[in-house]
Amino acid sequence: MTGRDGGAPLVPIPGSPVVILVRPQLADNIGSVARAMGNGGLFHLRLVAPRDGWPQERAWRMASGADRILEGATVHDTVADAVADLQRVFATCPRPRHIVKPVLTARAAAQDVRVAAATGLRCGILFGPERAGLDNDDMAEADTLVRYSLNPEFMSLNLAQAVMVMAYEWWTAGDDTPAREFVTHETEIATKGSLDGFLDHLVAELDACGFLRNLAKRPGMVRSIRHLFQRGEATEQEVRTLHGIVAGLSLGRMRRGRPEAVPEDDMAPGVVEEA
Amino acid sequence: MTGRDGGAPLVPIPGSPVVILVRPQLADNIGSVARAMGNGGLFHLRLVAPRDGWPQERAWRMASGADRILEGATVHDTVADAVADLQRVFATCPRPRHIVKPVLTARAAAQDVRVAAATGLRCGILFGPERAGLDNDDMAEADTLVRYSLNPEFMSLNLAQAVMVMAYEWWTAGDDTPAREFVTHETEIATKGSLDGFLDHLVAELDACGFLRNLAKRPGMVRSIRHLFQRGEATEQEVRTLHGIVAGLSLGRMRRGRPEAVPEDDMAPGVVEEA
Repeated sequence: MTGRDGGAPLVPIPGSPVVILVRPQLADNIGSVARAMGNGGLFHLRLVAPRDGWPQERAWRMASGADRILEGATVHDTVADAVADLQRVFATCPRPRHIVKPVLTARAAAQDVRVAAATGLRCGILFGPERAGLDNDDMAEADTLVRYSLNPEFMSLNLAQAVMVMAYEWWTAGDDTPAREFVTHETEIATKGSLDGFLDHLVAELDACGFLRNLAKRPGMVRSIRHLFQRGEATEQEVRTLHGIVAGLSLGRMRRGRPEAVPEDDMAPGVVEEA
Repeated sequence: MTGRDGGAPLVPIPGSPVVILVRPQLADNIGSVARAMGNGGLFHLRLVAPRDGWPQERAWRMASGADRILEGATVHDTVADAVADLQRVFATCPRPRHIVKPVLTARAAAQDVRVAAATGLRCGILFGPERAGLDNDDMAEADTLVRYSLNPEFMSLNLAQAVMVMAYEWWTAGDDTPAREFVTHETEIATKGSLDGFLDHLVAELDACGFLRNLAKRPGMVRSIRHLFQRGEATEQEVRTLHGIVAGLSLGRMRRGRPEAVPEDDMAPGVVEEA
């Protein structure tokens, strides 16, 4: 959130499409839409004939700090007026019938908006009123229809949720952070050599304590242990922790015979301090 | 919606992951979560220590008919209890720190859930409480973290929106409807021959009315008109409509000289009746 967690205030991102709410009914929903727009990096909001007039205090209460989006919203009498300066208009609608127009998934539409904006075109996306959705005249103002990939058995999609999906897809279409990462802030993934060093340590202690005394089964058991630790993708720090655990358990066993201080170096040295 | 628009009642879809809300605060949000789950085809809901107890009438009011999801929800004292029968657990969290674990985007996580479920694994997804999100102990119950691709300047994501994005990604990961379609219910895209037939008709009438009388410019003008109509991807029915429009305009012009009835065949015969 903007003020609350110290983020920068919301600003328009070049090329972000205009969100056009057609005859929205509830001010709460308009506020939730603004919040969803902020989540997805959208900024420009236009309202066509909002049922209860505009502005509405309830919208601000639901916007969770996306005030700038609400403050910048413009009100229009007709869809034609709201799209007059735009060059590409998308209309979200669940089941287009008898309309001859391209129908894209939200994902493909988001990609199209990115491509169009990159060539300098001003884009907008129409969202219909809560109950009825866009009517046929509204859809005739658009050049492309957008269909959501969602459960056809339960299509009761909240207005802010509809905007959320579109905003999320728009942000994702321009996002190049990797799909899969492995977070290792203070350390890095262990080399196979480090892991082998630990496994040698572990097997030596297991030999010493008698856990591997069945020599016929020993090779298979060692392999199983090796497989288990290979799967976990341990970090160098975790390998140090594992050394410490094995040393600690072994010393503990010995201490039950002859009590003496555990050397400090063996006390799980690699456990990461939490922030 | 289930009852309201005649869809089938919500049923569990095999392999759909369990949604686990950890210490949710507002019953309204739990209801909105159920609705979002229905939208994305999810069904199994678990609540860990809901702040205001359970059940709560307000949840049903916000669920827009996703009652079965709320009725099937189970309540648990701890995260450990809520995930005890699961085999893969994902945790949604905005900024993991000091945690050594795979971090996936919501999209990659949804694909992983699909793959895991296909091999028979039971999956669950943890969502933290409204203000604080999941704490470090909660995340330690998961094997994978999920990071949303959203605007880092405005991370105030509503709980139901967080579930919506994940449910949407899960549904989309299993959806094979094409990304781009062209809806032509009663007709099909015109052949180039049909379009040429119309362009010949148009050019003949433009010659007759004198619009193309500048013979030096005529070839370029004809090409421009041809380019414009090629771009529009007209259907056979729209080509018939265009024939009718040209005939109507030509006859109208002639009628100003000698009034006579327009033949009914030329009255925009191809306009699609709306449902």
